[in-house]
Amino acid sequence: MPTKVKAVILLSGGLDSSTILYQAKADGCECYALSFDYKQRHRRELESAVRIAGKAGVAEHQVVEFDLRRWGGSALTDERLDLPRNRSKAEMATEIPITYVPARNTIFLSFALAYAEAIAAKRVYIGVNALDYSGYPDCRPDYIQAMQEVFRLGTKQGREGEAIAIIAPLIHLKKTEIIQLGESLGVPWQDTWSCYTGGEVACGVCDSCQLRLAAFAELGLKDPLPYAHQ
Amino acid sequence: MPTKVKAVILLSGGLDSSTILYQAKADGCECYALSFDYKQRHRRELESAVRIAGKAGVAEHQVVEFDLRRWGGSALTDERLDLPRNRSKAEMATEIPITYVPARNTIFLSFALAYAEAIAAKRVYIGVNALDYSGYPDCRPDYIQAMQEVFRLGTKQGREGEAIAIIAPLIHLKKTEIIQLGESLGVPWQDTWSCYTGGEVACGVCDSCQLRLAAFAELGLKDPLPYAHQ
Repeated sequence: MPTKVKAVILLSGGLDSSTILYQAKADGCECYALSFDYKQRHRRELESAVRIAGKAGVAEHQVVEFDLRRWGGSALTDERLDLPRNRSKAEMATEIPITYVPARNTIFLSFALAYAEAIAAKRVYIGVNALDYSGYPDCRPDYIQAMQEVFRLGTKQGREGEAIAIIAPLIHLKKTEIIQLGESLGVPWQDTWSCYTGGEVACGVCDSCQLRLAAFAELGLKDPLPYAHQ
Repeated sequence: MPTKVKAVILLSGGLDSSTILYQAKADGCECYALSFDYKQRHRRELESAVRIAGKAGVAEHQVVEFDLRRWGGSALTDERLDLPRNRSKAEMATEIPITYVPARNTIFLSFALAYAEAIAAKRVYIGVNALDYSGYPDCRPDYIQAMQEVFRLGTKQGREGEAIAIIAPLIHLKKTEIIQLGESLGVPWQDTWSCYTGGEVACGVCDSCQLRLAAFAELGLKDPLPYAHQ
């Protein structure tokens, strides 16, 4: 039996990152999940990440801690800023939202690169998606390509052999297509968490809940998560 | 009087990063120092960073904490690995040394980018130097250029306006030239720390001490730091 390819999976515990974890498994990878406790607004999605990693049977799950509240700059790291509610899809698509966290994916991918090189993994999976959140600069294909160059030039592995590859399976998919993919892979949706707030149940009105609910509805599927407003 | 340009300075407390802090001041910047407590082998250089930042009169000094020991991969983050001692300059130049920390500069620059965008700084200074440590992949000009692309594409600032600029004033300088520059800028060498070990006095035999001592000697200058072996 051939040895499995080691892969680091950036796992937030949301719908997208949970789907890529199951995709990496389906791709035949030995999965090393990586999550971050960056003092985000709530810890609910981190609990989901732990649960999902356990269900998926990862080889290891690292949770790296640091504090992005220290300089704020986002509604996700500064509780004085309000989260947008009940925005239309057109509003979401036109501007970079206040939930944008400066350089977040760059920080996440940097740690993934360090982890991958240290354990000799060949791939890093990230669940970025350019369509639904076109507002986020660090979710677009040209950005991922730029980070791939950094992976090649910034590591011993990239200089001396083949660069660790960034795999972004969802980048060109619509939310409905991501859910269809996750359904086919058996992602346990009830254990994921997409809501920007961290209540007992998902709020149903933040950008993230709205996109998720609309996509499930469009597919005629029932999102198994309970919602406060729907 | 025109407003000063805000700049984030990656400050380890070593000779190179202390010099770029003083360079940024000379360039007329309002300086925001950024250091990392990544559970490195010793805290001595962090104490130096705090002292240098204080002497230079920075507007703010952030020390971000995270743990790079969790996956090791370097003699600087894994105490079971021995530090090289008494290596010749030729040996140092030919291969990527065991003191290479996977993706370290990528992680440092990512946090610098986040900090810079959050405080609306226009520049990030980094003391990388391609000549003396040509072994380190993430100290070379092509790597810095790749990170500059990430700064442009991965941020709101880079997408909507002018990208935060990476300034690497030492990249093409020899260690002797860096010391000459620092001398002209008044860098307090006695407060800097270059040694890879964290003893009471610098060891004098690790790669970093050797390069520093050789450069001071070549210039006919006295390094004010005490050394165990010289």
